Amino acid sequence: MIFERIKSAGIAHNSYLIGSGSDAAVIDPRRDCQIYIDLAQQHGLKIKYILETHRNEDYVIGSVELNDFTRAEIYHGPGLPWKYGNTLRDGQEFQIGNLKLTALHTPGHTDESMSYAVADLSSGEAVVMVFTGDALFVDDVGRTDLYGAEEALRLASNLYDSIFKKLLPLGDGVILCPAHGAGSVCGLNIGDRDESTLGIERTQNPILLKNRDDFIKYKVAEQPERPHYFRQMEKYNLEGPPLLGCIPLPTPLTPTEFRDEMGKEAVVVDTSVPAAFGGAHIKSAYSIWLEGLPVFAGWVLSYDRPILLVLEDQCHLEKAVRYLIRAGYDRVIGYLKDGTEGWYNAGFPIENLPLLSVHQFKDKIDRSEELIVLDTRGRDEWARGHIKGALHIYVGHLEQRLVEVPKDKPVAVICNVGHRAGLGASILLRAGYRKVYNVLGSIKAWVATGFPVTTD
Amino acid sequence: MIFERIKSAGIAHNSYLIGSGSDAAVIDPRRDCQIYIDLAQQHGLKIKYILETHRNEDYVIGSVELNDFTRAEIYHGPGLPWKYGNTLRDGQEFQIGNLKLTALHTPGHTDESMSYAVADLSSGEAVVMVFTGDALFVDDVGRTDLYGAEEALRLASNLYDSIFKKLLPLGDGVILCPAHGAGSVCGLNIGDRDESTLGIERTQNPILLKNRDDFIKYKVAEQPERPHYFRQMEKYNLEGPPLLGCIPLPTPLTPTEFRDEMGKEAVVVDTSVPAAFGGAHIKSAYSIWLEGLPVFAGWVLSYDRPILLVLEDQCHLEKAVRYLIRAGYDRVIGYLKDGTEGWYNAGFPIENLPLLSVHQFKDKIDRSEELIVLDTRGRDEWARGHIKGALHIYVGHLEQRLVEVPKDKPVAVICNVGHRAGLGASILLRAGYRKVYNVLGSIKAWVATGFPVTTD
Amino acid sequence: MIFERIKSAGIAHNSYLIGSGSDAAVIDPRRDCQIYIDLAQQHGLKIKYILETHRNEDYVIGSVELNDFTRAEIYHGPGLPWKYGNTLRDGQEFQIGNLKLTALHTPGHTDESMSYAVADLSSGEAVVMVFTGDALFVDDVGRTDLYGAEEALRLASNLYDSIFKKLLPLGDGVILCPAHGAGSVCGLNIGDRDESTLGIERTQNPILLKNRDDFIKYKVAEQPERPHYFRQMEKYNLEGPPLLGCIPLPTPLTPTEFRDEMGKEAVVVDTSVPAAFGGAHIKSAYSIWLEGLPVFAGWVLSYDRPILLVLEDQCHLEKAVRYLIRAGYDRVIGYLKDGTEGWYNAGFPIENLPLLSVHQFKDKIDRSEELIVLDTRGRDEWARGHIKGALHIYVGHLEQRLVEVPKDKPVAVICNVGHRAGLGASILLRAGYRKVYNVLGSIKAWVATGFPVTTD
Amino acid sequence: MIFERIKSAGIAHNSYLIGSGSDAAVIDPRRDCQIYIDLAQQHGLKIKYILETHRNEDYVIGSVELNDFTRAEIYHGPGLPWKYGNTLRDGQEFQIGNLKLTALHTPGHTDESMSYAVADLSSGEAVVMVFTGDALFVDDVGRTDLYGAEEALRLASNLYDSIFKKLLPLGDGVILCPAHGAGSVCGLNIGDRDESTLGIERTQNPILLKNRDDFIKYKVAEQPERPHYFRQMEKYNLEGPPLLGCIPLPTPLTPTEFRDEMGKEAVVVDTSVPAAFGGAHIKSAYSIWLEGLPVFAGWVLSYDRPILLVLEDQCHLEKAVRYLIRAGYDRVIGYLKDGTEGWYNAGFPIENLPLLSVHQFKDKIDRSEELIVLDTRGRDEWARGHIKGALHIYVGHLEQRLVEVPKDKPVAVICNVGHRAGLGASILLRAGYRKVYNVLGSIKAWVATGFPVTTD
Repeated sequence: MIFERIKSAGIAHNSYLIGSGSDAAVIDPRRDCQIYIDLAQQHGLKIKYILETHRNEDYVIGSVELNDFTRAEIYHGPGLPWKYGNTLRDGQEFQIGNLKLTALHTPGHTDESMSYAVADLSSGEAVVMVFTGDALFVDDVGRTDLYGAEEALRLASNLYDSIFKKLLPLGDGVILCPAHGAGSVCGLNIGDRDESTLGIERTQNPILLKNRDDFIKYKVAEQPERPHYFRQMEKYNLEGPPLLGCIPLPTPLTPTEFRDEMGKEAVVVDTSVPAAFGGAHIKSAYSIWLEGLPVFAGWVLSYDRPILLVLEDQCHLEKAVRYLIRAGYDRVIGYLKDGTEGWYNAGFPIENLPLLSVHQFKDKIDRSEELIVLDTRGRDEWARGHIKGALHIYVGHLEQRLVEVPKDKPVAVICNVGHRAGLGASILLRAGYRKVYNVLGSIKAWVATGFPVTTD
Repeated sequence: MIFERIKSAGIAHNSYLIGSGSDAAVIDPRRDCQIYIDLAQQHGLKIKYILETHRNEDYVIGSVELNDFTRAEIYHGPGLPWKYGNTLRDGQEFQIGNLKLTALHTPGHTDESMSYAVADLSSGEAVVMVFTGDALFVDDVGRTDLYGAEEALRLASNLYDSIFKKLLPLGDGVILCPAHGAGSVCGLNIGDRDESTLGIERTQNPILLKNRDDFIKYKVAEQPERPHYFRQMEKYNLEGPPLLGCIPLPTPLTPTEFRDEMGKEAVVVDTSVPAAFGGAHIKSAYSIWLEGLPVFAGWVLSYDRPILLVLEDQCHLEKAVRYLIRAGYDRVIGYLKDGTEGWYNAGFPIENLPLLSVHQFKDKIDRSEELIVLDTRGRDEWARGHIKGALHIYVGHLEQRLVEVPKDKPVAVICNVGHRAGLGASILLRAGYRKVYNVLGSIKAWVATGFPVTTD
Repeated sequence: MIFERIKSAGIAHNSYLIGSGSDAAVIDPRRDCQIYIDLAQQHGLKIKYILETHRNEDYVIGSVELNDFTRAEIYHGPGLPWKYGNTLRDGQEFQIGNLKLTALHTPGHTDESMSYAVADLSSGEAVVMVFTGDALFVDDVGRTDLYGAEEALRLASNLYDSIFKKLLPLGDGVILCPAHGAGSVCGLNIGDRDESTLGIERTQNPILLKNRDDFIKYKVAEQPERPHYFRQMEKYNLEGPPLLGCIPLPTPLTPTEFRDEMGKEAVVVDTSVPAAFGGAHIKSAYSIWLEGLPVFAGWVLSYDRPILLVLEDQCHLEKAVRYLIRAGYDRVIGYLKDGTEGWYNAGFPIENLPLLSVHQFKDKIDRSEELIVLDTRGRDEWARGHIKGALHIYVGHLEQRLVEVPKDKPVAVICNVGHRAGLGASILLRAGYRKVYNVLGSIKAWVATGFPVTTD
Repeated sequence: MIFERIKSAGIAHNSYLIGSGSDAAVIDPRRDCQIYIDLAQQHGLKIKYILETHRNEDYVIGSVELNDFTRAEIYHGPGLPWKYGNTLRDGQEFQIGNLKLTALHTPGHTDESMSYAVADLSSGEAVVMVFTGDALFVDDVGRTDLYGAEEALRLASNLYDSIFKKLLPLGDGVILCPAHGAGSVCGLNIGDRDESTLGIERTQNPILLKNRDDFIKYKVAEQPERPHYFRQMEKYNLEGPPLLGCIPLPTPLTPTEFRDEMGKEAVVVDTSVPAAFGGAHIKSAYSIWLEGLPVFAGWVLSYDRPILLVLEDQCHLEKAVRYLIRAGYDRVIGYLKDGTEGWYNAGFPIENLPLLSVHQFKDKIDRSEELIVLDTRGRDEWARGHIKGALHIYVGHLEQRLVEVPKDKPVAVICNVGHRAGLGASILLRAGYRKVYNVLGSIKAWVATGFPVTTD
């Protein structure tokens, strides 16, 4: 038996390839799907099935793309007006060499959610692993808020029953293979360990330790952020996204060419770390650090405008393009040759974004009545502890809620460590704010230094 | 938590690196240990501990080598006069970031065998995985014959108790991380799946389904082959093998240089597949196919003589050298430039070894009374079914038992698929046998074709 | 200035990428053109021009493919009814950053042949390198036989003038960048050194040491083999071949699936070395060793039938597919999982091809009046020395001239080292010949051993 | 013939491997020498000779290291009290397969400087390439200042004669293989093209266009900077540096561990780009951008103190360590886990270095009488044009000449693009200066913007 977990950074997405004999199946492929073809090739396998656990909302699924390369059959759960692939029924079975896969309908995260239980017939009939999609994670369970508040109760009840009546009964010894790891927007408290079993989750997953009522109450109360771009992903994943073929890498643009493209309709994304963006950047660029692209591009970038990249290091190009493609942004038209250095060496103007250490930040707070502290973290992070007097707007909503941020006062933007704060600060700069700071280390450094937070 | 399984082919050995925070531990490192250093480096980890599950007998342990690079502390089980490292006591604990490792004394395979249970304190106190060394495998358990027949009963009893009283009680949900996978000489029936849990093994590992008495009887009756080179490995692994430093790749030798070295004391190993070795080879070469090197080198090569390699493809050089180093053979003094082709293109003489398909082989048997069928498989394979009238000598014992093979008759050598038969045939050719055949596909093809076997 | 020579094995083809500032040009791209895109990307360059030296006949040009990825402009010489790209005039100039490229019309190999001289304006106006296509090689010059015997005189005269009036006058110090290296069918005596200058060639290229008359006489007398597939290449390279997109790797086929495809219309190509093919192969397979594929596929494979591969090592798959694609064979429908071993282990029948060392071969000749020695080398190799009494048919013509080879006698096939002899022998086996031998080492070993050859 | 140019960035050093048959020679190996072993292995070659062109002064030669791995013989020029290797005489010849290498004594850069002319006997007796060490570069010639002013005249005369009497007479068609490319401290005006010939240099190398007197006058007048660390290199390269074995990568240190090491004797080097260093850095760190390490480490770091690295990206670790090793710094004891972000996230204090665009810089100059403009470029760059009123101290001398920089005034540090200015600024910060600026883009951007420079 061949088992490969393919981790996609940024969205913390797990896809899987399993094989036996000369056949293989891929579960939840990503869109830049050459990796599955290469793995199959390495192991001498033919990809026969593509199995989706659900219509994903946080990235573009690669099923149609992978099917285009391999002719493997696509399967997904019932109840949606899919424009591609085949619809499963509960209990449907697949054979992959010596492996028997059984599709289990496990609604809750979404109505059509499926899990896939795997038995290794060369050893016996016992289920050895289960692909749970967004139903069950390590230390957490899936979101139930995607259909809106009015449906949350129903979804949460369904999820409880899927987990307790369908998944856990498979046995403590079953290896857990979820669709996400730590850092995903699909589960805020996913553990940073990839290896787990149903037994370990039954025993110590804090959500599974609740009884049915508490579980449902907890899930209904949860309010994770829901990016705008989820709608685009859902559309793509229902209808099938455009085919990519080979990953097209954009070409370098000289500063002059770059500026000319900026003058048309393209939007500039600078993927530098906060310290470098703070030191020097091109006016009107969004600051989205490299690993933040797969999630935060979707919050701020339009699907209608081409993208120009400013990279800290040219060797980041392929990664940046893959990250954007996974989020459905296929129109990256160029990157700045030699980055910000190429730009300023050519005599083009740069801006800076003043950076504060938490010590300088604390000083500023203590000395100035005026300073607005803008906390751009999520609701849950805010709730766990924040600086007294801060203004809370999640970074993803900032562009829509700028009216709440006084334009005539200095604003120190914070988040957990300074990355989202960098994006937030770049949004303010784009909107014409003049005195903006990014606090490096933000709440993490604040707390590490011993400064006080409140949960009021 | 970082978890990496490092598989070493040929001996089907698993070693592991686990990490958390900025620290890591390596379990049962192999001797060419750069891979652990690279993995640690990639994940930003410092290797702090090297944990041995037992004094291995089938390969040279890399603990001393890895310690030389990293200064990590080495630990192993009690009761042996170790010349390096630290001795553990049952229950001793280690902290690696958020991970808690507990050493469990689990004798049976050997007296000093240890297992290591891992809890991930960031999730809870439950054990999530256990490194079982050669105590418990997927679908099989460890050998208990290494101390000889007189000790087998004691070891088998110990092993049963270690598994049933120490390992299985850790819980069904615990992920199993054994020291070997399918193909190892340390367990003849290990499953070809790497992923398992204590629960799956408890349920369907056929050896664990026996009661204590049957388990012990079964283990005492088992008679796996025990290579001569195990003694050398045990010595190395008790005292610490010589340090390697960087892996030294031998240089190419022209046919003339190669012949000169052959004229001294070096032994020639040809790593071609059976069909190519049959087609053309250098007189007196051992035929050991590439993936067979880690195991079969030890059966036939002396530790005192330098080795010369003939490779099917020069790009196999590094692999061949690593395989030999893992078995303690550090004196590979050269390889033949351009392989057998370079040799015969220079006008040097070649030999061939006639190859038979099973159809030709069957014909030959049917038409000739004289033909000796020499079956070189292990005892257990022989017992499961063999060709009527065949002579059975395990390939590893053939050089010692040549007297049993008539020198004046044609000999068709077989094994399971023709690899070990190739080695066996090359041993006969070296000993001056004149009419020797290798049967391609051997018993596997024989059975697939529908020819009869017996278990008499 | 960036300069990269990209060597394509088998056809010994050189293509080049040169760049300066942020632009680049590619000279004579191959069809699997990702390598140019990667190199450009690595150096931060945009491919702006694709320059062809001539309509190649020995491989499919990648201009259209590369243009599809990059939108770079394609240029080639005058006088052909090109279906793509732009036609050049003599003296046309291109600017690539600080580089000035000048197109020089240098007919002779073909009428539309162009060379490209490069000056590095950051240093001065001097020409520093010249891309000569098939006009001038290291130690040799281009073929002049491609338009048939009646045109050879005209082409040879043109070639002399192109070299002596256009190329050599550029100056001794100009670096030579030809389209082929040693081993190409486009020049039989190309030196195995890649680095040369016009000065070195002027001084010691043996063809350039002749005067005009002798040069022309020599070229007209030359009769290199002209593969059938050149016609297909010429058509492709005039009209533009089909687009490939990503390189599609075929999937593994089980022995049963493979046999089923064989039963339809597919042809089997075994890429093993002669010793392995001799040891065991599938009936009716062509024996074309891996590095021989780019040249010899074209001699024997139809463009209408799909191809099935038998590989010595699965890791050769990508190389084999690329080699076939470069020769215009895009329909590789599968490869045999686990190769010949997988086949015979499944109980399927295999054939062998008896192999002879030159010593055994000499014995056979000496003892048998009957033995046909079939020499499959090229005319020029034959002319330089052959075995007395041998029959000479170039391997590429063998299928058309089988009638000349007696079917009822034993045939020992030879070539230079045994590779083409292997292909020749497989052609005889396919045609039903019963007693066929391949002589390993062939003439090279024969001569090295001191056996006699004649030039009669 | 095999020819490989191995470029080592930062010092713009070229080393070479040439091979033929089964042997190879390496010219001027670098200290991290695995690359030569790998290339030889790839091509099936045995490294037989290590040839030094001279006792290098800008990096540690790898001869002794490579000899330790390969046993290849080391050769170098006459007249120095070498502690390893063999001394050559003018005209000494070596055979490498079909290649003939002739050692030519070409003093001038240093007294013992050698060149190596290569003939390819398979083509003829003509010299096809020459390894000129530091005698002749593309567009430039070697330094003649290394023995001090009193010897410059003699060296310059020798160099002229070596080039005009020994090298150029080899012929215009000879390919030039110098020891350095553009960016080296061993030749300030080396062209950025790697490909050249003696003919091209004879024609357009501006130094070679001078007559003997002008050549000598020009060379004697030249005053390139001479780093302190040259002395250490010369000692190493005369006596043989310590053996490295495998490249040892340092381990990650947590912020606390890092701070503890800082508290002892270690010096901190931050390899970030100027914008990032400006944004946030650890107090007292030297700012040496990654590609600047091989040259500028030697100017400021003591050989007696261990080094701690702060990396922009952990994947730069190996490169940084190699760069330091090549300059003789073997004691890198650790790097900061998660870099500056890890540091400030842990609540540790950071500093910033204010950055100016040239526009802001110009404003500041115009508005403030006080501002010190400190130009840290080399003498020659300064001479070609500088900002009126600036203070000129080469960055490498700054620590020794701090007394010339007023401590109570704001200082804007400039160089060519802002990298050396970053180092200079960090030196001022370490020395307790309070108002220090780095001007991004520096003179290059200044000129591009159209601001005035003077050559007074």
